[in-house]
Amino acid sequence: MPNSRAPASVRRPEFAAWTKQGNDITQQFLSFGGRPGLIALSGGLPAPDLYPVADVQEAARLAVERHGSAVLGYGAVEGLLELREAVASRLSSERLSLGPENVLITTGSLQAVELIGKALIDPGDLILAEYPTYLGALDAWLPRQPRYHELPREGAWPEAKFAYVVANFSNPTGAVLTEAAREALLARSAESGVWLVEDNPYGELRYEGLVQRSMLEMSTEPGLPAYDGLVVHLGTLSKTIAPGLRVGWAVGAPSMIRALARAKQGSDLSTSTFCQGVALELMRTDADRRHAPALVKAYHERRDALCEAAREHLADLFEWTVPEGGMFVWMTARQQGIDTNALLAFALKEGVSFVPGSVFDPGGKVSPSLRLNFTANPPEVLQEGVRRLSRAVRGFLSHRAAAE
Amino acid sequence: MPNSRAPASVRRPEFAAWTKQGNDITQQFLSFGGRPGLIALSGGLPAPDLYPVADVQEAARLAVERHGSAVLGYGAVEGLLELREAVASRLSSERLSLGPENVLITTGSLQAVELIGKALIDPGDLILAEYPTYLGALDAWLPRQPRYHELPREGAWPEAKFAYVVANFSNPTGAVLTEAAREALLARSAESGVWLVEDNPYGELRYEGLVQRSMLEMSTEPGLPAYDGLVVHLGTLSKTIAPGLRVGWAVGAPSMIRALARAKQGSDLSTSTFCQGVALELMRTDADRRHAPALVKAYHERRDALCEAAREHLADLFEWTVPEGGMFVWMTARQQGIDTNALLAFALKEGVSFVPGSVFDPGGKVSPSLRLNFTANPPEVLQEGVRRLSRAVRGFLSHRAAAE
Repeated sequence: MPNSRAPASVRRPEFAAWTKQGNDITQQFLSFGGRPGLIALSGGLPAPDLYPVADVQEAARLAVERHGSAVLGYGAVEGLLELREAVASRLSSERLSLGPENVLITTGSLQAVELIGKALIDPGDLILAEYPTYLGALDAWLPRQPRYHELPREGAWPEAKFAYVVANFSNPTGAVLTEAAREALLARSAESGVWLVEDNPYGELRYEGLVQRSMLEMSTEPGLPAYDGLVVHLGTLSKTIAPGLRVGWAVGAPSMIRALARAKQGSDLSTSTFCQGVALELMRTDADRRHAPALVKAYHERRDALCEAAREHLADLFEWTVPEGGMFVWMTARQQGIDTNALLAFALKEGVSFVPGSVFDPGGKVSPSLRLNFTANPPEVLQEGVRRLSRAVRGFLSHRAAAE
Repeated sequence: MPNSRAPASVRRPEFAAWTKQGNDITQQFLSFGGRPGLIALSGGLPAPDLYPVADVQEAARLAVERHGSAVLGYGAVEGLLELREAVASRLSSERLSLGPENVLITTGSLQAVELIGKALIDPGDLILAEYPTYLGALDAWLPRQPRYHELPREGAWPEAKFAYVVANFSNPTGAVLTEAAREALLARSAESGVWLVEDNPYGELRYEGLVQRSMLEMSTEPGLPAYDGLVVHLGTLSKTIAPGLRVGWAVGAPSMIRALARAKQGSDLSTSTFCQGVALELMRTDADRRHAPALVKAYHERRDALCEAAREHLADLFEWTVPEGGMFVWMTARQQGIDTNALLAFALKEGVSFVPGSVFDPGGKVSPSLRLNFTANPPEVLQEGVRRLSRAVRGFLSHRAAAE
């Protein structure tokens, strides 16, 4: 039956329309990591040398010892009850009352981002986003075919399904929202009846300045029963422990948690109960909190190393604000007409990568900005990376001048 | 600023249209598991008392010891190279040549099912499926809004994106496709240029009869370079080791693997590298193969216990085929007009659950069939479950007779 062997040349069905849109730059950048000699300032990665390897190994042992087959079977779609309680308890305060019904455990917090799109977006529905915004979120929502509108800084909101904000150390800009800005967003969200998604992967990574209250906490009042407001707060162990566990969470009104669980059921049935068990043991023994100060100290030094090198080598070409926390510095060219997409080839030739600003724009517009990561490399490597970037920009400018 | 506290009564955006369709019966059945005293014949679960707990604990220790931070960081979207190679090597044969470019690691094989829909389906696109078909797949594809057509047993196929088949011990029917039926599907797939998805979660769980070749293997020829045919073969460690690891895989043409990886990137970035490391160590030390015979022996006994009890208590009411493997027996009422949706309430009252056939029908049609699981409970519990089911059916029939 020779016609049962399909030659590769046979007609094959088209992939879905969304696969022809957007960009695959995240995948590109993940693969850059492997080029020998390249200094990757493009990643969004924690420092592998700082993972608490022994703590995770011990937590895995404890998870099996204490929970046995409960961390090997399918679990409830919403996550292990004890872990949901642990997350609820961590985030609760005098003002904010949370129970497990407010918590969904997700396969990394990117899955929570994706599930929000899956549960809310029909093609053409509107998302309000900061411009620029997190690339991973744009990527996650692309198959749902939303429209985007820049989150208005003032005035009424258009009718939208949700607004998406990284209030602490935004990716890519590193910016923090002030208390007043948070209050304003909450007021607009409430008056428009629009969900307010507060993605908080970097909140624990603060190097200076005052800790701010979450919009989740600000959107309720003391004495109320379990939270039922419009904020959906996303968190993760990826930044303080290790991304390889893929354990994150969404915290919000029970109706939202139920809708997200419905969406999650068709995505992966449940997050690995084994990883949930490890996460539970890490949180129960406070390993993540014990680990945080060393991480914050190391990242603080790295931020300073990158910014000092930039002051020395890039200050005539770019401007930036030193971020109070997070993982990124956002630099914008002082000269008009610098397209950082075009700059990237020059940087790669010099042996350094960055992420061009265009990928963070929901419309993909050319940008004079770029994002540098300072957490994944030690100080001396960051300094060399900045020197290479400086050479790349100067080479790019001479090349452009010669072409004119 | 009192208007920043949204009362629960405020207007909230509608959830996406798909959330109003389909059913949430999987979630319902997962929650049945918790009712005290209920015998759940409704699950699709392995036996928790048979998980190789010590092997998993040892593999976790080895994973951290041997791979260190490589199993704690973000990994490539496609999965750890060594694990992709291990899967390729397991499935390769004299006839079938596979490399890592043929393998995507997924967060359980349900995620592979979902990604196939995400990568291929635009609203209204056609899927060819066996009727009845796997509920989890219907659930996974619902947000993509496909149409369904029953996979034709004879004759040409309509234009579709893919055909979905569980060739070994179908869920829900337990049926196996003959070699001739497989050849016929391959021929139709090749002549129509339609992807053929071969979902194989139960292949290792064979209690009698001859092992059949996979359609993946049948669709290529010896001497060809890495596989480039139309079959997409899905596998998992959930049934032979433990579902809590959420490690599965899709094996297929490199172009399909790339499209699935693109879709996966926006879903969860990568499957837990920690769980991948554990899976790799389990496969490297052949723990899954060592474990399989004990599992097959136990499930074989359970199948026999359920079927013998059914012959004693249900043979006058239902007919069924004893499955050669897998996890399920599919029973169809001998009497006309039995609606197993309506029967379910009577069963729950007697303290036993099953899955009514309607949920496996893409159109949700009322069904005279039901699915019983025999793997999750020991023989004596299965026997008691069947007795309860028998009482429930008889109660249901008297009730119906009284109402007429």
